[in-house]
Amino acid sequence: MTALDSVALRTAAANGEQDRRAEIYRNAARIFHRKGYHATSINDIAAAVGLTKAGLYYYIKGKQDLLFAIMSFAMDQLDEQVIEPARKVRDPRTRLETIVTCHARLITQDSSALTILVNELEGLLPGDRADIIDRQRDYVDFIADTLAALRDEGKVVGLDPTVGAFSLVGMILWISRWYRADGRLEAEEVVAEVTRMAVAAVLNRSTDQTKDPDR
Amino acid sequence: MTALDSVALRTAAANGEQDRRAEIYRNAARIFHRKGYHATSINDIAAAVGLTKAGLYYYIKGKQDLLFAIMSFAMDQLDEQVIEPARKVRDPRTRLETIVTCHARLITQDSSALTILVNELEGLLPGDRADIIDRQRDYVDFIADTLAALRDEGKVVGLDPTVGAFSLVGMILWISRWYRADGRLEAEEVVAEVTRMAVAAVLNRSTDQTKDPDR
Repeated sequence: MTALDSVALRTAAANGEQDRRAEIYRNAARIFHRKGYHATSINDIAAAVGLTKAGLYYYIKGKQDLLFAIMSFAMDQLDEQVIEPARKVRDPRTRLETIVTCHARLITQDSSALTILVNELEGLLPGDRADIIDRQRDYVDFIADTLAALRDEGKVVGLDPTVGAFSLVGMILWISRWYRADGRLEAEEVVAEVTRMAVAAVLNRSTDQTKDPDR
Repeated sequence: MTALDSVALRTAAANGEQDRRAEIYRNAARIFHRKGYHATSINDIAAAVGLTKAGLYYYIKGKQDLLFAIMSFAMDQLDEQVIEPARKVRDPRTRLETIVTCHARLITQDSSALTILVNELEGLLPGDRADIIDRQRDYVDFIADTLAALRDEGKVVGLDPTVGAFSLVGMILWISRWYRADGRLEAEEVVAEVTRMAVAAVLNRSTDQTKDPDR
């Protein structure tokens, strides 16, 4: 998938082929996640999406191309469902809550496609890998900038914004490892819990720690 | 590696062979992490540890056996350097700090062997996989029990201990993804920052949130 394809996927009116592509990406991501990228064959993917191998090649050029398409699709989702809504929020504290809530919600809804994003970067061609790494870095920077804005307001004290951003990303992405849709907690409870923890981790640190006689 | 080997590795006096095994596990973990488990051959590993393939087979039965040995080695390290010291701490808040600090420190010192632990479970034989998953679950339960003890003391309010434990584990393990020994921050600064965030995430939540007029 080229950058142009990716833009087309985002902007064009939803039609059958786009839905079909999204379905292929989701299913393939699920198999890659379960079997591992290297152990998964094109035949496995074709079988999972109900296509012949030849039919699948209409949508993708090969396994490596498919991996990049899935990662780009996941980053597109992050753009649309997390970064774009959060950019519109001026207040840094509310922006932070928006980032964590929207990202946690995206993962509870659609974890496989995002999980693979993290584990299989080595499977990509160097140019594609750089593209994904750039987009991931932009996201971490966006969170770090939000933490820096909170620091400038005096609401975050003594936290390195980059360490803060990476730690929150780790907490959020990890949801894909433990959350089960059929588990004890509703998705929205998990989203709310993680959002409260993330906000407390950065906002309530030093205040409470100076007040605490134990420290 | 059998459970008996693992016990032997922990308890016997350090000798040349054990150091050699540990070195093989660390190097192999590094290659698995860089190239991916499936893409790594026994020849790659032999070359990296300066052994012939036959020489390597003195230490390991095969690639799958090596993967399990690495994961067991990583769990042994977690036992020795995190769980055992933390179990001796009676006060739940100090115990939580001990867990996060010791685990974050272990990762900044030795990230590859632990990182692989998380990604390659599918590569193991079912019995070995169950063994590692049990040990991982015991660790999450240990953290959740500590959070439950803090809740019983009234210090943690309205947090599900399991969600809290998984979120902290995600924050800590993620260090292996972004920390660089030659980076801007010293390892101990990173350890201290992550510990403060983790403690704040669970301890300072509701107090501050009830006080905050925005909520």
